Amino acid sequence: MPGLSRVVVEASEAMSVKYNTMVYELQQRGKHVVVMSLGEAYFDIPMVPMEELAQPDVHHYSHSRGLLDLRRKLADYFRTEYGVDFDPDQQVIVTAGSKAAIHMTFMSILNPGDEVIYSEPAWVSYPEQIRLCYATPVGLPYEKSVYDFEEFVTSKTKAIVINNPNNPRGQVLDRKELEHVLKLARKYDLWVLSDEAYSDFLMDDSFISLAALDPDKKHAVVFNSMSKNYGISGWRIGYVIANKELISNVLKVNQHLITCPATILQHYLARNFHRRLEITKPQIRDVVCKRKQVAAYMDQIGLTYLPGTATFYLFVSIAPSKLGSEAFCTRLLQDESVCVVPGIGYGKSCDAFIRVSVGAASFEEIQYGLGKIKELIDKTS
Amino acid sequence: MPGLSRVVVEASEAMSVKYNTMVYELQQRGKHVVVMSLGEAYFDIPMVPMEELAQPDVHHYSHSRGLLDLRRKLADYFRTEYGVDFDPDQQVIVTAGSKAAIHMTFMSILNPGDEVIYSEPAWVSYPEQIRLCYATPVGLPYEKSVYDFEEFVTSKTKAIVINNPNNPRGQVLDRKELEHVLKLARKYDLWVLSDEAYSDFLMDDSFISLAALDPDKKHAVVFNSMSKNYGISGWRIGYVIANKELISNVLKVNQHLITCPATILQHYLARNFHRRLEITKPQIRDVVCKRKQVAAYMDQIGLTYLPGTATFYLFVSIAPSKLGSEAFCTRLLQDESVCVVPGIGYGKSCDAFIRVSVGAASFEEIQYGLGKIKELIDKTS
Repeated sequence: MPGLSRVVVEASEAMSVKYNTMVYELQQRGKHVVVMSLGEAYFDIPMVPMEELAQPDVHHYSHSRGLLDLRRKLADYFRTEYGVDFDPDQQVIVTAGSKAAIHMTFMSILNPGDEVIYSEPAWVSYPEQIRLCYATPVGLPYEKSVYDFEEFVTSKTKAIVINNPNNPRGQVLDRKELEHVLKLARKYDLWVLSDEAYSDFLMDDSFISLAALDPDKKHAVVFNSMSKNYGISGWRIGYVIANKELISNVLKVNQHLITCPATILQHYLARNFHRRLEITKPQIRDVVCKRKQVAAYMDQIGLTYLPGTATFYLFVSIAPSKLGSEAFCTRLLQDESVCVVPGIGYGKSCDAFIRVSVGAASFEEIQYGLGKIKELIDKTS
Repeated sequence: MPGLSRVVVEASEAMSVKYNTMVYELQQRGKHVVVMSLGEAYFDIPMVPMEELAQPDVHHYSHSRGLLDLRRKLADYFRTEYGVDFDPDQQVIVTAGSKAAIHMTFMSILNPGDEVIYSEPAWVSYPEQIRLCYATPVGLPYEKSVYDFEEFVTSKTKAIVINNPNNPRGQVLDRKELEHVLKLARKYDLWVLSDEAYSDFLMDDSFISLAALDPDKKHAVVFNSMSKNYGISGWRIGYVIANKELISNVLKVNQHLITCPATILQHYLARNFHRRLEITKPQIRDVVCKRKQVAAYMDQIGLTYLPGTATFYLFVSIAPSKLGSEAFCTRLLQDESVCVVPGIGYGKSCDAFIRVSVGAASFEEIQYGLGKIKELIDKTS
């Protein structure tokens, strides 16, 4: 067989996807699994007819920046909700999910050998996407904060990535922290990539988009997604907001990689934008409440987790256990049919953690699953 | 502003996308344009309801190899139509369009400095995708055939790309030509990437998939798409067929770049697979017939084009004109509101050509457009 790319051969599978694939395969064999591994909240979403959409436009490519109607809806939403202004013609691209948006942005800013700084626990794809660009991921151990970033800046540093609110710890960065990151970006001429996919998963309206603090978008690049806030991760609709020059480069990459996300779904969302938000907003509040209840239950049974209030994840310590996080999760799935994601997938400092998602399982199932986690920690300490 | 990626800054916009964007923008200003630039055939496609699909599955991620039901339908189709066997569990990934499949495959096989051979005129994204992997595109001038490939093989050559049937010339490779390419691949240990997106756009059943001649898929990698054969380019559903080891590497890339194509559309297509084919097959025959009629009309008015019988494109010479292909197309669009794609987008040997698509405009409009092309050639000779 001819040879393969070294960087891809060395790449890890996305840990969350790997475990969820194991779940699909167990379910297909008729097994019941308590699923606390999914990066999704399951909302009740009534479908409205697609037949009323513009024919035949829905079957064909959209503008490679995304459907203009949808870009305008997003611009209105950002102005109203986050106090962020962007030009829907020049400063945004609607992409096939925010994962693709982040990757295409890394491609557009990184040269081989550049370094990118972020905090662990970090979303599973940041380091691999950076490596696929022949650049170097620099993950800070989980005990560090944004105030420690500066000591990791070198002459090769090109960007800082923040994930706000953070998957998997549920932490939200406040104005002071965001201002500090932007100050560093100005001092060292860095991009700041702010992945805000969980922006609506807060208990209150305190969320601050990075773009609100950098109105010219000289450094701030914001990613968001309809996946989480609209409960339709499988529709693959995300977007990137940045200055015109960066966007025009990401656009070239988008034209050669994907062209556009599914046009029919863009039409559907442009037409039903507010209606869909009305449906999901109360359900988002419910799932953030559920997260709080789950945290209280963890306190009660003696599980500890990193501080955080947002998203539908908790990053839970398995520290007394002698098992590494992968061995722990594999055993939990095989012996107890409970699935969570190994912490090691979120950074090498995180092997004594697991990610627990409360988005898909019922509160009772989660209680059951947490009981099994506690038992396995005790059994292997 | 912080710096950008050199390879992206130097990348060209996709020429076809660039001209089609100019068309969108003219249309938005109320201008009527004769559109012979689109890479799409406009079929009459009745929508069937989406509400009957499996809820809530349609809203969430699918397996990162794509929905199993759809992979099985594709495996049946390849067995019946092309005599190709592949394992739907291990040897295929359903992707967000075949463009993404091709890029992720380049990422999975290429190391920096590798070379990839293909014939010009070549689909606009091959060279840019190869460069984005820090590898070198080696395009053969349009007069060369597959029998000339060997003289371009070096120690750095990693792959050959064939586009069969070819966009934009409409050429179909026969068994002897395909066998020759595979012989070279075996001799020099190369991958052969066969982009077969227009496999159904032939006048007869003579199409041979490369995978039929390499049953172990030791060298053959096949790309196809539901975009063209099903008339739904905007749905972004393509796929890659290859051996298990290559697929497992492309899968990792897919997990970090896109996860999966839109799940709801995968469910729809799995459920309506044969029904959709019944709707489009006669329309495909019609558009290939239309291509033949257009070719006859060109003969009549004295336009020449490269030989070919398939797809819905013709690669037309503007040779007597003193204008380069971009200047020619820009003037044609500005002065006559007729849009075609400059040949230079398909390779540096192709600046005396333009791509004419017969997929979207009526025969009468095409006659009008060709008349304007002929006039402009004569006027600028």
